[in-house]
Amino acid sequence: MKAEIITIGDEILIGQIIDTNSAWIAKQFNRAGIEIYQVTSVHDDPLHITEALKKAEEKVDLVIITGGLGPTKDDITKNTLCKYFGTKLVFHEPTFEKIKKRFANRNISMNKLNRDQALLPESCTILPNSAGTAPGMWFEKGGTIIVSVPGVPFEMKQLVTNEILPRLRGNGKLKAIYHKTVLTQGLPESMLAEKLAEWEDNLPGYIKLAYLPNPMAVRLRLSAIGDDEKMLRESVEEKIKELQQLIPENIYGYDDDQLAGVIGKLLIKKNASLAIAESCTGGYISHLITSIPGCSAYYKGSVTAYSNEVKENILGVSPNTLEKYGAVSKQVAIEMALGVKKALNTDYAVATTGIAGPGGGTEEKPVGTVWIAVASPTKTAAEKYVFGGNRERNIIRSAQTALQLLRKLVLKE
Amino acid sequence: MKAEIITIGDEILIGQIIDTNSAWIAKQFNRAGIEIYQVTSVHDDPLHITEALKKAEEKVDLVIITGGLGPTKDDITKNTLCKYFGTKLVFHEPTFEKIKKRFANRNISMNKLNRDQALLPESCTILPNSAGTAPGMWFEKGGTIIVSVPGVPFEMKQLVTNEILPRLRGNGKLKAIYHKTVLTQGLPESMLAEKLAEWEDNLPGYIKLAYLPNPMAVRLRLSAIGDDEKMLRESVEEKIKELQQLIPENIYGYDDDQLAGVIGKLLIKKNASLAIAESCTGGYISHLITSIPGCSAYYKGSVTAYSNEVKENILGVSPNTLEKYGAVSKQVAIEMALGVKKALNTDYAVATTGIAGPGGGTEEKPVGTVWIAVASPTKTAAEKYVFGGNRERNIIRSAQTALQLLRKLVLKE
Repeated sequence: MKAEIITIGDEILIGQIIDTNSAWIAKQFNRAGIEIYQVTSVHDDPLHITEALKKAEEKVDLVIITGGLGPTKDDITKNTLCKYFGTKLVFHEPTFEKIKKRFANRNISMNKLNRDQALLPESCTILPNSAGTAPGMWFEKGGTIIVSVPGVPFEMKQLVTNEILPRLRGNGKLKAIYHKTVLTQGLPESMLAEKLAEWEDNLPGYIKLAYLPNPMAVRLRLSAIGDDEKMLRESVEEKIKELQQLIPENIYGYDDDQLAGVIGKLLIKKNASLAIAESCTGGYISHLITSIPGCSAYYKGSVTAYSNEVKENILGVSPNTLEKYGAVSKQVAIEMALGVKKALNTDYAVATTGIAGPGGGTEEKPVGTVWIAVASPTKTAAEKYVFGGNRERNIIRSAQTALQLLRKLVLKE
Repeated sequence: MKAEIITIGDEILIGQIIDTNSAWIAKQFNRAGIEIYQVTSVHDDPLHITEALKKAEEKVDLVIITGGLGPTKDDITKNTLCKYFGTKLVFHEPTFEKIKKRFANRNISMNKLNRDQALLPESCTILPNSAGTAPGMWFEKGGTIIVSVPGVPFEMKQLVTNEILPRLRGNGKLKAIYHKTVLTQGLPESMLAEKLAEWEDNLPGYIKLAYLPNPMAVRLRLSAIGDDEKMLRESVEEKIKELQQLIPENIYGYDDDQLAGVIGKLLIKKNASLAIAESCTGGYISHLITSIPGCSAYYKGSVTAYSNEVKENILGVSPNTLEKYGAVSKQVAIEMALGVKKALNTDYAVATTGIAGPGGGTEEKPVGTVWIAVASPTKTAAEKYVFGGNRERNIIRSAQTALQLLRKLVLKE
């Protein structure tokens, strides 16, 4: 089965919001064996929407339209769909009851705009939206399924998961697709490609390989498409086993594995605990660690020591060290790591101190200079990096690098 | 001038990466007066790329293609472009010298894949890439400009900013566009729409209004398109002044203003300092605060007190309070806020304690229950929320709500 995603909304085309909906839908659909042929973002404009629908219908079996269903006046999708499918808006009592109940529960009164959300195209199947007021609409036309859902991510996700996918599964006959992504660190893309050239040449024709570089990692995605899902999976897993022999040091995870989650698993295995001291990363490492469910099993907490006062008073960094070497130094990084490890009574600790920018750089220590220290029950180490990007990039790279150093340390001990 | 963005890459269509490039390009282009007609994401497939190019050429004056220019074998864009423009790849000496120098600086050796990046279409203008090895390619065909840039965000941004926009500005004749977005809090979309109905009806025809709801805010975007930029800007600003009269309490900022930045400005005005104590938000509020350049003027730091031990030992939360009321309680939130304010010696503090999920919920305190406390030199207050979303959503909403409470407190005092 082939699908196209059409997102409606000027806000995407002027760059005000990033289209995260399409990525989410693409991922879910791929897992369910539906190939995404194209993603098209169009204006809140009836002609443009109609044109995109027509083109998509020629190419795919399923079109999913997101956006353009809010209660306010910029809503035009419903009317365009009515015209396209030659139907008209009718009042849908069950939807109206739901909207009424929703407002009553929140103790706010309804107005005409809210009531109008119960006006829906007569010829479609209504998909109930348990997370909001605008329901999904399921149309069929000459073998193509066209579904329209609201653009609010939470509501869209509920509709895809609870309504659209179950209905499509009922149809049967989905083509088998198997993807697996190998996450690597420590080799640049070109070196990795050279090392894997022979392995790559021996991939069977139905497995496609793609290199997906990141600032901090190179991901290798293997995609197999065919009829027999079990065979595809086994074949991909077989090739990944070969890969594990070729670059054993470089693979740190698979698919959606996050470095913070990989570290969490290692710490749980060791029954060890972790604390973090952050200066330039400002809480971002702690945020990455606490984004992993269940992290309270190993994570005790962190101190963001943005001012020197906090470095001294809470982490016990010596005023002498601060004065002699400056806040961005090997010595301060190490004292921060040891200080937070002691104050929070943990087995491991990681600390960052650097100049995120845009201000604060000097000739000797330019913007992007970062010292990262790690401490284990028996070892302490620190490394210097000069990333030199903008503030956001420096924070992200510092945090990811800190987690890499931490992973290596926990792995070795 | 009208443009289309074509992004090439299977990774977008299987949902492995989110297409942030298009949003960034759209924003820059809009600011420069170039309207984005459509964003189209296609597969790494010569036929599909060619088809998308043909369709775009019919509609727009400028096509920008991102992705598909890495050194590895999944690269097919260059060959497709050669075929499309009836030209061939030739060796480009200046590009080769740049690549060589880049590798020498990093002390790593080049291989054939790196050398092949200097093979470029004969008929295009080469746009030098100061951030990577793959240059941009600028083609012209029957009045349409087609530019291809790498998909690595950092490299793409350099090329758009330093090469593409300056060249387009040289062309003259760009249509004037003026956008401004008003950020509001405290009124749901439908109520806001009702309150603003008359104002909206009186908008001139060349100003378009859109409601962009968020979990935490409703943004109102005013877009004016015409010939005279000064007139458009003045007209939009005039309408925004009227808006300030209509909903003075609800507007907290404009365009890219972030709540953390708005709070920062208020604190600088008062010459006041801030500390944060986080449990369920795990460092995310501190990350938001430290994402603002110059925050060291008011921000001293934070304590992520994930374990009760840290709440007691670092923040001075009483063991009695923890036992009597539990970690997720009004009393603990207040003691955390007062504790971090004292330990870090600041004027203001905010604290969160809650159950982010997916585990840890009870009947009395379900997943999503959060207590948020704020403290000023003279006041302390706490509020309870039950968000009840998933972990990520609970963390984000808790952090945004904490910043809202903080903003209100700082504003009042």
